[in-house]
Amino acid sequence: MQDVYAVIMAGGSGTRFWPLSRRVWPKQFLSLAEQNESLLQATVRRIRGLVPSERILVVTSERHSGATRQQLPDLPPENVLAEPAARNTAPCVAWAAAHVSARNPNAVMMVLPADPHIGDEAAYRELLTRASAAAAEGGLVTIGVTPTRPETGYGYIELGDQVQTEVGGGVYKVQRFVEKPDLERAREFVQDKRFLWNSGMFFFRADKVLEEYQRHLPDLHAFAVGYRDQATASVAQSYVIARYAELTSISIDHGIMEKAQDVRVVPGAFGWYDIGSWTTAWELASKDADGNAVLAEASLVEAKNCYVRANAGKLVALIGVEDLVVVDTEDALLIMPRERAQDVRRVVDDLTKRDAKKYL
Amino acid sequence: MQDVYAVIMAGGSGTRFWPLSRRVWPKQFLSLAEQNESLLQATVRRIRGLVPSERILVVTSERHSGATRQQLPDLPPENVLAEPAARNTAPCVAWAAAHVSARNPNAVMMVLPADPHIGDEAAYRELLTRASAAAAEGGLVTIGVTPTRPETGYGYIELGDQVQTEVGGGVYKVQRFVEKPDLERAREFVQDKRFLWNSGMFFFRADKVLEEYQRHLPDLHAFAVGYRDQATASVAQSYVIARYAELTSISIDHGIMEKAQDVRVVPGAFGWYDIGSWTTAWELASKDADGNAVLAEASLVEAKNCYVRANAGKLVALIGVEDLVVVDTEDALLIMPRERAQDVRRVVDDLTKRDAKKYL
Repeated sequence: MQDVYAVIMAGGSGTRFWPLSRRVWPKQFLSLAEQNESLLQATVRRIRGLVPSERILVVTSERHSGATRQQLPDLPPENVLAEPAARNTAPCVAWAAAHVSARNPNAVMMVLPADPHIGDEAAYRELLTRASAAAAEGGLVTIGVTPTRPETGYGYIELGDQVQTEVGGGVYKVQRFVEKPDLERAREFVQDKRFLWNSGMFFFRADKVLEEYQRHLPDLHAFAVGYRDQATASVAQSYVIARYAELTSISIDHGIMEKAQDVRVVPGAFGWYDIGSWTTAWELASKDADGNAVLAEASLVEAKNCYVRANAGKLVALIGVEDLVVVDTEDALLIMPRERAQDVRRVVDDLTKRDAKKYL
Repeated sequence: MQDVYAVIMAGGSGTRFWPLSRRVWPKQFLSLAEQNESLLQATVRRIRGLVPSERILVVTSERHSGATRQQLPDLPPENVLAEPAARNTAPCVAWAAAHVSARNPNAVMMVLPADPHIGDEAAYRELLTRASAAAAEGGLVTIGVTPTRPETGYGYIELGDQVQTEVGGGVYKVQRFVEKPDLERAREFVQDKRFLWNSGMFFFRADKVLEEYQRHLPDLHAFAVGYRDQATASVAQSYVIARYAELTSISIDHGIMEKAQDVRVVPGAFGWYDIGSWTTAWELASKDADGNAVLAEASLVEAKNCYVRANAGKLVALIGVEDLVVVDTEDALLIMPRERAQDVRRVVDDLTKRDAKKYL
């Protein structure tokens, strides 16, 4: 197979997993599903057989670049691209494309978020390989996940016609991308076999995606080309620092994928989960007979369907409570019903407002 | 007034206030209502004007005698009587009576639990004075609290006829002591003006109560007389250590008060609260507009009627929960609905059973 690079997007800020995630230690560094592996480490481990370490790039914020290098000691340190400002995913992919393009313009990039959970890793790797091969032919390719429930928290992809490719079947045109639906539409989507979850995984050749940037986001294209032409690594880093904060802030979904002409999708099912909140963490975790996911030393008296997490050496006692999330850290404790997981940001907002930043 | 001694019973084991109360640091050492004063310290402070420090005795377990002396630095250290075993309140009062009797056989003892909360301290002190004066005449006297609600957690006292005494009115015969009633009977008791809460405060002359011990609990009487006859303090302590664990284990209520002939009661209302559980702690604490009693740094989002307590430097965030008790300590965290407060012992039992004693 052609040169394949992996670009892992690890720019999360981690509000939804407070108090475990902090400004200095966001979601991707946490073990949310597996016990001894962070989400980022799991993402890198899963592609180890497909992409050698030298061709794995991780884009993260400057603040988190140190922790990222620490968590991935096998990666060449220069493969961690440290964003000097948060500008969403389109600038991040443009930068990575310039990086890859400087080494091999025809190389295929697989762009992967750092934080999904993958239930069936063999099926996942097979799909990555197929999507990369499809991308080698020149189009922009995404992976669409066969929906298993009427999920309103994800975007959807509507399938178009099947495409004849050199890699055989299983590649389709994307008819359109659909924003997060309400529950009624989500139910229709699950019934109708033509809708897939948008996994946020993208596959394209570096030269091809840069052409799309030139067409749809010219300032990002100019930035990428300028970066590629810098003589040395240290000059290139100064170049990024000088310009990054001014780049158009837009997602790769909205800025490129939804606008490009030839976008294809490879459908698949591989136990994909976007671990988006403590609710998902509870869903993924193994549970006792009463539905409690307990990642702590605990004494439970008539407690049901709770998610309990605390540091070693701390005992958590629950009596007669149901459907609670309890996350205890050294200096902060969160308690809420599982269904209120999306309101964690309200605590984070409250703490920001009253300048209690040491807890963020 | 005649010599009055105060005997404060501070032998609590503290199960109901876990995880704040521990084997080494039970309820009486905690600040549950007032912020900067433990229950024991408050009890001693309230009687300061009535009884000089030299005549205040505190009976506690051997394990807690050090902390007791620390919390009450004004008391002569020998006034803290350290029980070598837990034998309920009758042995404890017998021992204290022997102690008082050795100094002055006619002295009046006021026997007070270490842990009630008193809302109206002036009315309380006036009642203590009146009950002590009534006891000086020779009977066994208790204080009965005018009920304000159909409480099923307390014992009751049924009033008999008023007694003519030298201290004037307000002293009645006790018709009978009534065990904790069910809700229906408790409602009747509140309607019927002849029923009072048993406060567990007792007043009698040392010689008179020892006579009652001789009649009803002869082994405790023999123990007390033997103690009084020891030549030196250190010999007396060895005497106690050799015998205490074998004494009849019974409460002063069942062993003496309910059996004695001439028992009198002084009724009163003084904001008396037996702080028996976290529920009571919530009732007594000052609350915000949503009914939350917050003794912690907190971020509350749509939380109502909760009791929240944590150490300094710990932030507690509650989202969308109601009627919860949340008590966080360095190594243990308790979460339960307020109404489940009586089930704290089930956690304590569980921890005992599985040998997790470091949390007790």
